[in-house]
Amino acid sequence: MAGAYVYDFSEGSRDRADLLGGKGANLAEMTRLGLPVPPGFTVSTDACRVFLRTGAPPTGLDREIDEHLADLEKSIGRRLGQPDDPLLVSVRSGARFSMPGMMDTILDVGLNDASVLGLAETSGRERFAWDSYRRLVQMYGTTVLGVAAARFEAVLSRRRAESGVADDLGLGVSDLVAIVREFRALIAADTGEEFPQDPREQLDRAVLAVFRSWNGERARVYRRREHIPDDLGTAVTVQAMVFGNSGPDSGTGVAFTRDPGTGRTGGYGDYLPDAQGEDVVSGVRDAHPLHDLERLDPAAYERLIGCLGLLEAHYRDLCDVEFTVERGRLWILQTRVGKRSAEAAFRIACALVDEGVIDWPEALARVDGGQLDQLTFPRFDAHADTEPLAHGVPASPGAAVGAAVFDVAEATRRAEAGEPVVLVRPETSPDDLPGMIAAEAVVTGRGGKTSHAAVVARGMGKVCVCGAADLDIDVEGRRAAAADGTVVAEGDTISVDGTAGTVYLGELPLVASPVTHYLETGERTPGVVEAVARFLDRADATRRLDVLANADTAEDAARARRFGARGIGLCRTEHMFLGDRRRLVEELILARDDADRKQALDALLPLQRRDFTDILAAMDGLPVTIRLIDPPLHEFLPDHTESAVRIARERAAGREPDAREVRMYEAGERLRERNPMLGLRGVRLALVVPGLIATQVRAIAEATVARLRAGGDPRAEIMIPLVATVEELRPARAEVERVLAEVGREAGVAVRCPVGTMIELPRAALTAAELAGEADFFSFGTNDLTQTTWGLSRDDAEASFLAVYLERGILPVSPFETLDRAGVGRLIESAVTDARRTKPDLRIGVCGEHAGDPTSIHYLAGLPITYVSCSPYRLPSTRLEAARATAAGDTRIRNRNP
Amino acid sequence: MAGAYVYDFSEGSRDRADLLGGKGANLAEMTRLGLPVPPGFTVSTDACRVFLRTGAPPTGLDREIDEHLADLEKSIGRRLGQPDDPLLVSVRSGARFSMPGMMDTILDVGLNDASVLGLAETSGRERFAWDSYRRLVQMYGTTVLGVAAARFEAVLSRRRAESGVADDLGLGVSDLVAIVREFRALIAADTGEEFPQDPREQLDRAVLAVFRSWNGERARVYRRREHIPDDLGTAVTVQAMVFGNSGPDSGTGVAFTRDPGTGRTGGYGDYLPDAQGEDVVSGVRDAHPLHDLERLDPAAYERLIGCLGLLEAHYRDLCDVEFTVERGRLWILQTRVGKRSAEAAFRIACALVDEGVIDWPEALARVDGGQLDQLTFPRFDAHADTEPLAHGVPASPGAAVGAAVFDVAEATRRAEAGEPVVLVRPETSPDDLPGMIAAEAVVTGRGGKTSHAAVVARGMGKVCVCGAADLDIDVEGRRAAAADGTVVAEGDTISVDGTAGTVYLGELPLVASPVTHYLETGERTPGVVEAVARFLDRADATRRLDVLANADTAEDAARARRFGARGIGLCRTEHMFLGDRRRLVEELILARDDADRKQALDALLPLQRRDFTDILAAMDGLPVTIRLIDPPLHEFLPDHTESAVRIARERAAGREPDAREVRMYEAGERLRERNPMLGLRGVRLALVVPGLIATQVRAIAEATVARLRAGGDPRAEIMIPLVATVEELRPARAEVERVLAEVGREAGVAVRCPVGTMIELPRAALTAAELAGEADFFSFGTNDLTQTTWGLSRDDAEASFLAVYLERGILPVSPFETLDRAGVGRLIESAVTDARRTKPDLRIGVCGEHAGDPTSIHYLAGLPITYVSCSPYRLPSTRLEAARATAAGDTRIRNRNP
Repeated sequence: MAGAYVYDFSEGSRDRADLLGGKGANLAEMTRLGLPVPPGFTVSTDACRVFLRTGAPPTGLDREIDEHLADLEKSIGRRLGQPDDPLLVSVRSGARFSMPGMMDTILDVGLNDASVLGLAETSGRERFAWDSYRRLVQMYGTTVLGVAAARFEAVLSRRRAESGVADDLGLGVSDLVAIVREFRALIAADTGEEFPQDPREQLDRAVLAVFRSWNGERARVYRRREHIPDDLGTAVTVQAMVFGNSGPDSGTGVAFTRDPGTGRTGGYGDYLPDAQGEDVVSGVRDAHPLHDLERLDPAAYERLIGCLGLLEAHYRDLCDVEFTVERGRLWILQTRVGKRSAEAAFRIACALVDEGVIDWPEALARVDGGQLDQLTFPRFDAHADTEPLAHGVPASPGAAVGAAVFDVAEATRRAEAGEPVVLVRPETSPDDLPGMIAAEAVVTGRGGKTSHAAVVARGMGKVCVCGAADLDIDVEGRRAAAADGTVVAEGDTISVDGTAGTVYLGELPLVASPVTHYLETGERTPGVVEAVARFLDRADATRRLDVLANADTAEDAARARRFGARGIGLCRTEHMFLGDRRRLVEELILARDDADRKQALDALLPLQRRDFTDILAAMDGLPVTIRLIDPPLHEFLPDHTESAVRIARERAAGREPDAREVRMYEAGERLRERNPMLGLRGVRLALVVPGLIATQVRAIAEATVARLRAGGDPRAEIMIPLVATVEELRPARAEVERVLAEVGREAGVAVRCPVGTMIELPRAALTAAELAGEADFFSFGTNDLTQTTWGLSRDDAEASFLAVYLERGILPVSPFETLDRAGVGRLIESAVTDARRTKPDLRIGVCGEHAGDPTSIHYLAGLPITYVSCSPYRLPSTRLEAARATAAGDTRIRNRNP
Repeated sequence: MAGAYVYDFSEGSRDRADLLGGKGANLAEMTRLGLPVPPGFTVSTDACRVFLRTGAPPTGLDREIDEHLADLEKSIGRRLGQPDDPLLVSVRSGARFSMPGMMDTILDVGLNDASVLGLAETSGRERFAWDSYRRLVQMYGTTVLGVAAARFEAVLSRRRAESGVADDLGLGVSDLVAIVREFRALIAADTGEEFPQDPREQLDRAVLAVFRSWNGERARVYRRREHIPDDLGTAVTVQAMVFGNSGPDSGTGVAFTRDPGTGRTGGYGDYLPDAQGEDVVSGVRDAHPLHDLERLDPAAYERLIGCLGLLEAHYRDLCDVEFTVERGRLWILQTRVGKRSAEAAFRIACALVDEGVIDWPEALARVDGGQLDQLTFPRFDAHADTEPLAHGVPASPGAAVGAAVFDVAEATRRAEAGEPVVLVRPETSPDDLPGMIAAEAVVTGRGGKTSHAAVVARGMGKVCVCGAADLDIDVEGRRAAAADGTVVAEGDTISVDGTAGTVYLGELPLVASPVTHYLETGERTPGVVEAVARFLDRADATRRLDVLANADTAEDAARARRFGARGIGLCRTEHMFLGDRRRLVEELILARDDADRKQALDALLPLQRRDFTDILAAMDGLPVTIRLIDPPLHEFLPDHTESAVRIARERAAGREPDAREVRMYEAGERLRERNPMLGLRGVRLALVVPGLIATQVRAIAEATVARLRAGGDPRAEIMIPLVATVEELRPARAEVERVLAEVGREAGVAVRCPVGTMIELPRAALTAAELAGEADFFSFGTNDLTQTTWGLSRDDAEASFLAVYLERGILPVSPFETLDRAGVGRLIESAVTDARRTKPDLRIGVCGEHAGDPTSIHYLAGLPITYVSCSPYRLPSTRLEAARATAAGDTRIRNRNP
């Protein structure tokens, strides 16, 4: 009897979670499979949506519930709230996506002053009956009638004190009877309403209360965090209550079809005799291992194992169930595809492939890059007991221990002496780079997931906690004070958990990752490593997108290669200008004429040549895409305001300020820009500063010659950044070709490097057809493209309003984290189409950080592009996600063309 | 006999200027009309393009010239260089677009050692013949053979000295014979070649030299400035020479069909008896008025007047001609539609309409906004004799005189005392705004046409010269030093010509503009004012685009209305936060909690309400589009580095720095952004700072109520800036609606204001379909949209590389000056299409500065948008250009559908 809004468990199936919620759909599925499910029905999400929209339940819902309730009563042989032997029901939420504990539940609906006596009588347990009644009144009072929970707690607390008992279990029947009376008086006083004695009224209002809880504060916050749409609504399941606390031949438990920690087969779980689900959850009594049930009730155990086998075979995955044994009879109350650890996810999926239950494309759907990432980080062994010193944003995962240091000098000094350090800064800038390189971990007081510290740390695979606002970081005093007054002085050991976003005082024990050991060495060991290795092999054979790495040094390049990169998609040359060479760049900036400038560039040339030679060696035979210098020159100068203050102080003290500082300050004054992101950088710098392109290209060409002479297979490619018009690309490319030819003539070998352009400005995307005519390849720089498309500076947005936007749901996710399809994606799509019209075989890649974000990879994998390039540490998960996207796409295509 | 590359004058027409150049086409037209044109032929631009591409003349050109030359010789009855009575020809450039003096010309081709004697004989003037030969050798040497002009000048100079004469006219026949000999020796020594005696060789090589001059330095620079494409090439006209210096019955002159200064009808021009064109140009002898020819040679005069009448009737416009009378015979050497003053352009076009020669759409094509602008500015009467103190960029036209001042305080102090001042600054920032308001003119040492000073000055209609680099401006010393050492001290009177970009010491006499007087008062006087008034009336009746104004004050609004604005398209509220109210904004920034913030906002409310009330009164019955506050808050704080230095200095001196300064500095530290253009501004600010929207909207709503109560017709519209996603627009709009409703309830009247959004980020354009669903109107902010589409900060680009880009032709024009169609335009077009699909009747406007640029207006007029909004001073020209665009579009449509 299918109605418009209410479905009997026998009417649904697991495919109808949209309508019935996950819980309702799985109950229906189990009912259809013939498993022992207490009967019941589900009020659909359609009904909820009508209620949320109009504020009233849909017409006819009342009648449908009537009919389903009558059927339920008939099948049980008892009526709801029947005084002598009442049918009681649970009323639970169940949305399309699991939102555990976020919405309301009301149990024991059907109890009233009469039926509580009947329940006492039939169950033979008067206290149980009155305690159930007490719970119903309390849950109904808070959930349906909105009485503050503390009001009920106060009554209980007073009663406990009066009776001299420690907890609610100590309260006797007379206490509970009195408490129920007090609760009802309290409800009447607070709301002007009586607790309804009519079981049907209890049921109707409980259903609406569950609907309403969809828009409760907790549920809304959770949905925002999990990116669950707000307009889905929840279903409500109404199910006959069974009682695991009906004596020694009863009990309740949770069982898994496999070990959710390791994936090993065999029933696994907990069992608690003579108890209800709540007792398991509350942990008041210690649960027994599931096997004890075999001893206590072999028949029930047998049936349970049979059910588990049936479920795993049917769902073709690890399932968990909640079950109850009521007087020797097994009931399955709920099932779902079970949550599992990252390790188990890989091992179970491999095992299911080996067992022939699923194929590889399905196995790829069962794991994800986030789980793989988790497996690659070291972690702290057991810090559950240690209280964190500070909380922040989990900006770059993993765990690390070291001595706290507060500046670059101390960081490098200690690191060079072999001491592991943690760099603690209010925030980081490019100045701090050497310190970040030296450190095991970085902690900052300000900034979020896309702050400089976070981005650089993730790129380097360093642990990072950002925005630890409860740490007061005093760089001058070389100390940080926690909220509780604890002070971390320079040299104190601290432990940083970048996965959780926590900082601890002292040294927590570290566990290395066997998966990372495999990635670094290729050694396969049984268990999780073997499972991951098989997945990565399969991923590389499956994925359509090439996966390259962003790497700026030979060391990064070598690691990227070990981690499976098929080349370098972005080699940022400006990182080569930092550290010791900074002084040379300063000379370049201070140059007064072409001769000075040439001298500075000539000094940089051999250093860059060596860098490129080493990188080309590390990536021999694979492409190395080198981006010409991109950032504004003044980024290489000291902070302008700080310089001004130092100079003013010296002068005020009657001293002559340092001459170089003054020159640098003046250069800064000349070069200073209001909006450097939109200023003299990228190809603009290359076109305006004579010799800049020539020096960099000469270094690349000479490195290529050196590698050719050494018998190598160098494959440098040259990429021109921040192009807005083909009129920039044309002369820049001509200059590149000129220098390549010149070096080729000098060396007597042909030096050929493809020359491409970054597409990182809206105008470049909009004029892609023209640019394609002058480019051998395109590389979308989605970080910058996002900044200009949104008119949103990452640094500034992070520091001010982005958090508010995310909090208020104005943005579901930062566009710097997950690629914005409607804006940036639309530009990319039209650029790809236009460019391919000009040059059908143009190579097109994406080298922004989005290339390491699973959601973005799945989107990009659907576009006709050639490759993505991500940081070395994201390579394994990116390889996996690219394959998952291909497999999912293939599945979709298969499904479309049966 | 039409060849592939050479056309007889009788073969062409004025429609073929692409092929024949302007000169060749007009000569052909006159030949066809039967006017007395010396015969000749034109080598086409096709031939030039082949030559420029391949380095060699096209195959067959030689034969074609043979044939045309033979025809020419036959018609004249003499052969080229014929020894006894030579045909001589001129070889002149003539491109599609006039490039006066930018390419080469060679006259008297055909003279050699033999024919010079024949010419002497037939002309009876030996000196004339030898001087002609001297000129040919000299022109041929420099132009064809590339000998440095100074080499020839040195010979002449020595000869003059030796002969003791002051100028070349003093040189006798023997001198000239010797000079020709010396010139030829010099050519042989420098080039290893002899001056060719073969007239045909002279001709061929002269033609190629003219081709080559298309790519000469002068020509390339000129084309870049005038936006003439580089690939057109020039035609070459070869024409029989006639000689106005053949005796008293000969002469030469220039004639106009009307007075090019005033447009008055009647032949007008200069005549010089017994002279050649060069003598008129060199000004060695004073020319006679044209009427003198009537007395000297009534028949020739009669014929000339007949020719002029024929030409004006045929071209239906003012024409000018070069003519020669050779022994009583009139020859017309050249004609073109004549250049004219701005005044004449309007008067002639009106006169032609009145005479029934042209209709209004054609008249609109004959004038432009730039000419109208010229007529609206005051100018200096006669400063040709005064040497400028400094040159700069003509950033905002007009002329003004005042006392030089170097800071805001002095500017306002003197201005309040009634003294006109000129603000002289190294550059300007928003801090300088009160000074700019107080000043008659602004002069800056740095920056170009789109610098802050230039943009603000144009917006206010103030005279401005920017980037006067030869002025060394010493703000602390309150003086500026010119390159010649002249010092301008504070209070010295200076005169600024913003049309020419010049600054003068002392007071130059000013002439007010009668057109501006008309615009301000509506008083029509005969002459140019009447002509302009008729054009503007016609423009308003013709144009499809509505023209609104950008105005921030009641005064601006009133002026805008007088100048013809149909409302305000952009009222920037942040300008209301400057001046006296700055302190209130500082309080807002310094607010520590909601209460402080509310107090600050409450203090601003009545001031804003009064502003809005006044503006709505000035624009009663017309829309006033008010943009909510847009810029980042820290723009209202003092310069951060300067504050830091002041505080450090105080502290170094052992003094306590000013407490407010310290608080402001700290607020600056908190609010400081790396890229404020991409930071916390616009709708972001509105959403993040509590009460900001509410206060502004309340002020608007209360102003509306006040105007309604006063019996007015207020039409405020509210515009939300910097929207990137509909999720920003939705809550901002909801807040606006909430406050409007609230004020409406309080006042007991319905307050309805349309709410729209700026489209000034690429993402807004890309998601226009969604935004249209939440907006009552769109306004494209093309300044910001250009900045983000190009990733180009206007301030920074101006200061660094934009000039280099323009100079090198990477950009043909600044995208901030003329709207970039390929990038920004493509975004606008797709946004308009998408938005109209959502909401077909959406009002769409453009309020960036491009709305005042003629080229951009013509582009925008072709899009289905509703209005443009420009600064009040650009209104007349924008009204005119919008009408011209409509008329041109209608003409195109008529031509397509005959």
